[in-house]
Amino acid sequence: MPIGEAIFTQRAIRRLKSDPIPDDVLETILQAARRAPSGGNLQPWRFLVVRDPELRRQLAECYVAAWWHRRRAMGITKAEDMPRDNSSGMAALYFTTDAEHFSRAPVHILVCNVSQADNVMTACQNLMLAARALGIGSTITRIGEPSDERVHELFSIPPEVDATLCIPLGYPLGKFGDAARKPMSELAFLDRWNQPGPWLDTLLTAR
Amino acid sequence: MPIGEAIFTQRAIRRLKSDPIPDDVLETILQAARRAPSGGNLQPWRFLVVRDPELRRQLAECYVAAWWHRRRAMGITKAEDMPRDNSSGMAALYFTTDAEHFSRAPVHILVCNVSQADNVMTACQNLMLAARALGIGSTITRIGEPSDERVHELFSIPPEVDATLCIPLGYPLGKFGDAARKPMSELAFLDRWNQPGPWLDTLLTAR
Repeated sequence: MPIGEAIFTQRAIRRLKSDPIPDDVLETILQAARRAPSGGNLQPWRFLVVRDPELRRQLAECYVAAWWHRRRAMGITKAEDMPRDNSSGMAALYFTTDAEHFSRAPVHILVCNVSQADNVMTACQNLMLAARALGIGSTITRIGEPSDERVHELFSIPPEVDATLCIPLGYPLGKFGDAARKPMSELAFLDRWNQPGPWLDTLLTAR
Repeated sequence: MPIGEAIFTQRAIRRLKSDPIPDDVLETILQAARRAPSGGNLQPWRFLVVRDPELRRQLAECYVAAWWHRRRAMGITKAEDMPRDNSSGMAALYFTTDAEHFSRAPVHILVCNVSQADNVMTACQNLMLAARALGIGSTITRIGEPSDERVHELFSIPPEVDATLCIPLGYPLGKFGDAARKPMSELAFLDRWNQPGPWLDTLLTAR
C-alpha cells in the first residue's frame, strides 16, 4: 500500500471482528514498530502481545475500570452524561460500555515504556500504519489507575515499567477513511507564530 | 512509495544539501503530519515552518548551544570526549560541531506542543515518513535550555507553548537505509513479560 493511502485513511477503529490475525501479519506489524526512531536510539518500547482469551478478558476489565475512573473525575458517571459534541469520547463508549467489545480484538498490544526519558509514540504510529496497510484496525487506548497494579500482575511486568498504553488490533467491521482534523491554517505557520504560509490555500482541501 | 519501504528505510539523516524544498512537497509533508492521531483528537501540535535564512542561522545557534549544554552536564565538553560507542551521539556531532551544517537544511519545522497532556510524536513520525517517501531526509532534534527563551522570542511563540522539538528537512547527501535496532527477542513478548512469541525465529531476520 502507498504510504499516502495508509496515512490519509488511518482512523481510530474500535468495531472489530474476532477473526484471528495470522502470525506472519503480526510479525510484519511488530517489525514496523521496532523500526521506529527514538532519541539517542534508546528504543524504550517493549511490545507485550496479548492473545490469550482469558488475559484479554481481564485486560478489558482493567481498561473499562480505568476509563470510567477518569470520566468520574470529570463528573461523567454513565454513557448519557457524555457530551454529544465530544465525538472522540462518544466513539470510545463502544469499548467502555461493553467490555466484550474491547476483549473481542483478537490481539492486544501493550506498548510498554522502560524509560523515563522518552516516549513510545513513534513506535505506536509505525505499528498502527503497518496494521492499516494490512487491513487491520487499531486505536491507542490508555489504561492506568486504578488498574495499573493489576495490569502489571497479570503480565508479570516489572513495577518500574510503564504499561498504560494498549493497542487493540483486529479486522474492522466498518471502513477506514477520513478523520476530522483542524484546518491547516490553525496548525501550520511560516517563520513566525500564527503567520500563514504560501501553502495554505491548497492545504485546506479535504482529503 | 509503499509504506513498508518508507518505514524500513527511514533513518536519521543529517548530511543535507541546501537545495530548496518545493512548496507542494512541503504541503504534502504537512498534510501527513496534520493527519496523525492524538488522544481525544486534541491535535496538540503546531508546525512552525522556518525557511528564512537568518532565522535558520539563529535557530542553529540555539540548537548547538542547547546540545552542548546537555553534554556538559554529562562531562562532555568537546567532540573528542564523546564515547565512540555512542553511535547516535557521534552522528549528532555533525550538526553540533558546525552550526552551518544544521542551518544548511532549507527548512526546519518546529513541532510545537500547545497541550500539557499529550505529546506530538505521532505527527513527527507521519511528517518524517512522508518526507522519506518524497526523498527528503530528517531527524528529530531537541533544543531546550538555555536556548528556550530565545527560540520563543525569535518566532513570537507564546510562552506556554512547548517549542523544544525541531525537525530539519532536506535532500540527503547520503542514502536512506537500514538502522540498528535491538533484536525482536528483546522487544516483543507473548502474553507475559519476557516470554517469547511464535514469531521470533523469523523476526530476527535483518531488514
